[in-house]
Amino acid sequence: MPESIPPDSVGLVEPKCARFDTALTLECGRSLPSYELVYEAYGKLNAERSNAILICHALSGTHHAAGYNSPADRKPGWWEVCIGPGKPIDTNRFFVICCNNLGGCHGSTGPTTINPATGEPYGADFPIITVQDWVHSQARLADHLGIDRWAAIAGGSLGAMQALQWAIEYPHRLRHAVVIAAAPRLSAQNIAFNEVARQAIRSDPEFHSGRYQNHQVVPRRGLMLARMLGHITYLSDQAMRAKFGRDLRRGKDDFDFHYEVEFEVESYLRYQGESFVNRFDANTYLLMTKALDYFDPAAAFEGNLAKALVGVAAQFLVVAFTSDWRFSPARSREIVRALLDNDKEVSYAEIEADHGHDAFLMPVPQYLEVFRTYMDKVAAESAESGV
Amino acid sequence: MPESIPPDSVGLVEPKCARFDTALTLECGRSLPSYELVYEAYGKLNAERSNAILICHALSGTHHAAGYNSPADRKPGWWEVCIGPGKPIDTNRFFVICCNNLGGCHGSTGPTTINPATGEPYGADFPIITVQDWVHSQARLADHLGIDRWAAIAGGSLGAMQALQWAIEYPHRLRHAVVIAAAPRLSAQNIAFNEVARQAIRSDPEFHSGRYQNHQVVPRRGLMLARMLGHITYLSDQAMRAKFGRDLRRGKDDFDFHYEVEFEVESYLRYQGESFVNRFDANTYLLMTKALDYFDPAAAFEGNLAKALVGVAAQFLVVAFTSDWRFSPARSREIVRALLDNDKEVSYAEIEADHGHDAFLMPVPQYLEVFRTYMDKVAAESAESGV
Repeated sequence: MPESIPPDSVGLVEPKCARFDTALTLECGRSLPSYELVYEAYGKLNAERSNAILICHALSGTHHAAGYNSPADRKPGWWEVCIGPGKPIDTNRFFVICCNNLGGCHGSTGPTTINPATGEPYGADFPIITVQDWVHSQARLADHLGIDRWAAIAGGSLGAMQALQWAIEYPHRLRHAVVIAAAPRLSAQNIAFNEVARQAIRSDPEFHSGRYQNHQVVPRRGLMLARMLGHITYLSDQAMRAKFGRDLRRGKDDFDFHYEVEFEVESYLRYQGESFVNRFDANTYLLMTKALDYFDPAAAFEGNLAKALVGVAAQFLVVAFTSDWRFSPARSREIVRALLDNDKEVSYAEIEADHGHDAFLMPVPQYLEVFRTYMDKVAAESAESGV
Repeated sequence: MPESIPPDSVGLVEPKCARFDTALTLECGRSLPSYELVYEAYGKLNAERSNAILICHALSGTHHAAGYNSPADRKPGWWEVCIGPGKPIDTNRFFVICCNNLGGCHGSTGPTTINPATGEPYGADFPIITVQDWVHSQARLADHLGIDRWAAIAGGSLGAMQALQWAIEYPHRLRHAVVIAAAPRLSAQNIAFNEVARQAIRSDPEFHSGRYQNHQVVPRRGLMLARMLGHITYLSDQAMRAKFGRDLRRGKDDFDFHYEVEFEVESYLRYQGESFVNRFDANTYLLMTKALDYFDPAAAFEGNLAKALVGVAAQFLVVAFTSDWRFSPARSREIVRALLDNDKEVSYAEIEADHGHDAFLMPVPQYLEVFRTYMDKVAAESAESGV
């Protein structure tokens, strides 16, 4: 944490845990007899319960979206640029919830949890979870919190897919969906990158068919490769050029002609890969990439996204970033077009930003401005009319 | 081989081997006391020795650029679409040479060769080879074949980089350089992909610090991952969409919710990865990616490519493909601009093609037409004036 808490931070926050003892039937056909969701809450729920915002996290995110969990924390939550007093998701006005998704590895029930049926960690036995399953489990969390209707559900990337799925499944349980850096389904190229990441993990000899916990090891190499590869797809070519160019690692002034790190970009990727291994579970990574691959709300409508969105009642803000090549603006426009085909209310912003897919986590001024303006409107409605 | 040899194929060809017993000093500072280059030759060298074409291969290519090595061959050489009677590189008019590059694994001296100093395979001890080293070794092959000046040197991708390097190093030993799907140096993103591929190989427990031959194993998993990843960068998103879309593997009609192959694109990538392992050496793959990373003729001129090209005498054909995101047309235009800055003769074609980087291997009509027209001019000059 910085010496003193910045005035636009939610400051120290503590995760909470909600337990659910009614079985949840999953899209894969299996069910979880019981589960826990760890979440954080910022701001205050108003008397009308009309100012609640659900934040959905992406592939490697957690429930810790803003603030600091302890004074020793060096880094704030993953969406600190967007959540806090005076920020687009203004905690002076909104009551903000973010939970670690089912299948996660930061406290919610997932592969590292003890399976009550066996007394051992679920590991590879944890059922495959889909975006739909997450939305169902989050709806129960809303019930638990006494929130009938979210003022908005917001997320970037895989988080945005959850917002979209909410709008489809529970049209009357959210007023707004904020869908940032998303795609209505993965492309073959997106799936291909995920498949290489999964192969890296699953072919690691220390993966042990997903039962590595029983062997007291971790498929470090595979998970590290998966993360390195992921990182390339999160950054734009421009961002990499600006950040690293072809610079040699610090302290070097010429090629060494060997296989150790020579370029700054190699050093960066290895660092990202190595540090990820210490905070993320390989089985969870597999689950998250599968949730991405399977997400395809139009599939039940012969690929017609507009038909999938017929029943939507929420208003939408859709945001894309020009240099995002993982989910390019064209993919966001597919969502916008399908909403417009149904005469739904949608605002679309294509933000000029060099950061690539990761831009949704960055303090890009035009992005924050658009987001803030939209959320101001949401806040005004919440204050005026209640749910 | 097809039932009968197609009239536009060079037909059955046999690799030859040239041995060099004068030490070759390499850019890394080490030297090879002796080495062999395996090559193929198609067509006939004319009396004036003015019709010789050097073909340079890319990362996973070999000396086998055209025709069939045996009647049992199912597939012809890697550039069959461009080399043969009546094709752009017309073997009725040109004498065509293609060698397996130094460090390769298809017959030329490389990591799998026995190191005369130790009696064991070079393995990881094989020195790191650069594009400059290849060009030097190819110049000796030209001497060996009695070719003072190539009518043209042509290649795609890493092969094109060799053509460019030839034009810089031996300006009077080639009349034309055909530079297809190239970049004057790798971007940080290109290097990043190579680094993940190398990490996949080097972190495979069966890599044994590159001495896997001594352990009678092969780092299959790592090499397979490297190839899968490479393949994604060779294909465009459009090509993948056209080829696979989100189609499920044949025989499936719904998700199985497991980690085996579900989508066609996953099946394709795994097949590509697996078959590659049987025909390629992991140490060679490492060498080739490093040669790519190090290639940067402008580096000695403070990044000014135009200065690097001041002494060039060859005329250039530069070809790029619209959907190539590995080396986009913008990268080819950097080369064109640097040549024009020096008032060099250069033709540039940006070909509309959906295949991505791999387009240079594909029978794209406009590409073959441009290539043919250019080579017609080269042939006419060869016939008229000799060297």
